[in-house]
Amino acid sequence: MSLLGDIDGVGRDGVRGGYSRHVFEPAELDLREWFTEQAARRGLEVETDANGNLWAWWGQPGPDALVTGSHLDSVPGGGAFDGPLGVVSALAAVDLLRARGVAPSKPIAVVVFAEEEGGRFGVPCLGSRLLTGAIDADRARALTDADGTTLAEAAASAGLDPARLGADPAVLGRIGQFVELHVEQGRGLIHQDAPVALGSTVIAHGRWRFSFSGQGNHAGATLLADRRDPMLPAAAVVGAARRVAAAWPDARATVGRLVPKPGGTNVIASSVDLWLDARVPGSGKTPAMVTEIAEAARHAAEQEGCSVTVTEESCSDDVVFDAGLRAEFDNVLGGVPALPTGAGHDAAILAAHVPTAMLYVRNPTGISHAPEEFAEPADVERGAAALADVLENSAI
Amino acid sequence: MSLLGDIDGVGRDGVRGGYSRHVFEPAELDLREWFTEQAARRGLEVETDANGNLWAWWGQPGPDALVTGSHLDSVPGGGAFDGPLGVVSALAAVDLLRARGVAPSKPIAVVVFAEEEGGRFGVPCLGSRLLTGAIDADRARALTDADGTTLAEAAASAGLDPARLGADPAVLGRIGQFVELHVEQGRGLIHQDAPVALGSTVIAHGRWRFSFSGQGNHAGATLLADRRDPMLPAAAVVGAARRVAAAWPDARATVGRLVPKPGGTNVIASSVDLWLDARVPGSGKTPAMVTEIAEAARHAAEQEGCSVTVTEESCSDDVVFDAGLRAEFDNVLGGVPALPTGAGHDAAILAAHVPTAMLYVRNPTGISHAPEEFAEPADVERGAAALADVLENSAI
Repeated sequence: MSLLGDIDGVGRDGVRGGYSRHVFEPAELDLREWFTEQAARRGLEVETDANGNLWAWWGQPGPDALVTGSHLDSVPGGGAFDGPLGVVSALAAVDLLRARGVAPSKPIAVVVFAEEEGGRFGVPCLGSRLLTGAIDADRARALTDADGTTLAEAAASAGLDPARLGADPAVLGRIGQFVELHVEQGRGLIHQDAPVALGSTVIAHGRWRFSFSGQGNHAGATLLADRRDPMLPAAAVVGAARRVAAAWPDARATVGRLVPKPGGTNVIASSVDLWLDARVPGSGKTPAMVTEIAEAARHAAEQEGCSVTVTEESCSDDVVFDAGLRAEFDNVLGGVPALPTGAGHDAAILAAHVPTAMLYVRNPTGISHAPEEFAEPADVERGAAALADVLENSAI
Repeated sequence: MSLLGDIDGVGRDGVRGGYSRHVFEPAELDLREWFTEQAARRGLEVETDANGNLWAWWGQPGPDALVTGSHLDSVPGGGAFDGPLGVVSALAAVDLLRARGVAPSKPIAVVVFAEEEGGRFGVPCLGSRLLTGAIDADRARALTDADGTTLAEAAASAGLDPARLGADPAVLGRIGQFVELHVEQGRGLIHQDAPVALGSTVIAHGRWRFSFSGQGNHAGATLLADRRDPMLPAAAVVGAARRVAAAWPDARATVGRLVPKPGGTNVIASSVDLWLDARVPGSGKTPAMVTEIAEAARHAAEQEGCSVTVTEESCSDDVVFDAGLRAEFDNVLGGVPALPTGAGHDAAILAAHVPTAMLYVRNPTGISHAPEEFAEPADVERGAAALADVLENSAI
């Protein structure tokens, strides 16, 4: 899709591979500008809400709007499709509806949510959580990135008023229904041999920070018996997370980020922070699994004379998308697979407030959050057409 | 000591704590400038050799010189004494000799070696290894820092000619004897209740990089059974290093630096690099221990469908300091403890080429490579006086 080709040079990560497009950093700001320009070319008026989400309006902003879109930020070293595919497909759907001569009876908006990945400030779906009040605004303002910059500071430098971050019922109240199109992040559509699916559920998920403290010291001069090395319990948690998760049905537990301080080769670390991404289907099960992993962390820390604190950074329960909307869309699309997913989305945050649906586009590698993430051009077109179809159905 | 006070604001690390002063970066360049100024105040002519080591001369540079000094670079988040104490004590010893009216019969030089910690380019004692030819110049030029900058590029930007890096027999040939004063990095002098010791041996040591490759993917959408997560074998190596080292007499093994890529919370890493610092007394024992740890790494990688490569970055055998010089200095100092150490030093590289000795100053915390590293002012003065004593003895 030529719109994705437009941005394929923005935010390439020479060190990690793939793309690193973090909220309010230069690459992501370039993408916002590119989006605003694309919207302007289509005569869509763009507004930035108090939480940094972008809204491009076809028709007067108002209640009962048909909203579609996704996000433009990425994980570090992510793929080209996660987020941008939903945004460019929304713009393409607008083009298709116009080409079909559809005159919508309701306003249509293309939305770009801020910091969906939590790649900079740690909390995923931050833009939609703020909008819906799912995260306390004071807590959000105080979130910091790896350099110690707060969300409040980053938002201010991007031209937002940090005092206005937080629940925005007026903006939320305009949404009549929300549909997000997204590249699939697993192998469901490969197995089903289909290009497009409707989302059924999103597994509960959360993030916990494990902070281990020990005693920094010299790697050569310190006898093994004299050590309090926080790398030992941190490494034990990586193994424990896998072991514990394997005993919970359909659970996932991942440590993808682990930072020893100071991080020198000839230095016993003084502290180690690691982040546990945990997901277990079923209400309350994710925190229960994390409790088991935290227990293993405490035991391992104690064995090494270290301490550990475990902090919840985010936690969301299972989400089931609106059954009525799903049945209606399935009918419009002539019957497509229904897919559960282990990946979180802004749609899952909005689902608690407005009728919400998701469309997935087949990913022939089954890989996501990595450069191998892909969608065939023909499937991308089918996705945009399906999105146009369901919008047309709702708009007439 | 006021000279250390001069530089206590240079290179403070607000994120890690302590000091981060890496070769040819702004803080270390500031320290070089400070050193040059201090030498000039004393009428010592400063030259930079082809490998970026600084030499401040009292008397005409020439053969049979009495050389003393240490380094000004640090590990990331290091202490204030490791390196700088040896440099300021050397300057203080020059002051003391002059105050005593000593007219040296031989040239005296204060040396500052470059990149002793290997904190930027990974190979410790890089300045003395290059000078003595202990590392191949082409290999050294190609070493890279975390940003991908090569040593050749960094040296050029600091005003050196990268083509001239390498063995320098003319500069090495001027050294008649070398003595390095250093803060102790363990608890030997606490146990012996003494302020100053002479070095006896340095344990063999080396660094190996373990690079694990797996498949980056989505932390929520990827079933446990479908994963090839390189964090699992990397974490297993942290535990294996401790377990294996515990079975080798007096061995040390440390993983203080571990970098998952891309390093996102909701991302299964695609690769993990970790560095093993390994030290076992006895010729050939360090590589033999590392072979056992590498075997554990290969097994753990295979279990997870990952691969691993293990690369030696540096390896040095045990060093015994010159017996004659040690006996002579012990006599001059009226009998002081003899200390073996697990820490590497430029003195241990030079010991293969010239008569070499080390003086240690008591560290009341026993901690090094961390902000807690310390020496009492009275002990610092005793150290400088002892250094002046042994230089005076050799100079007359």
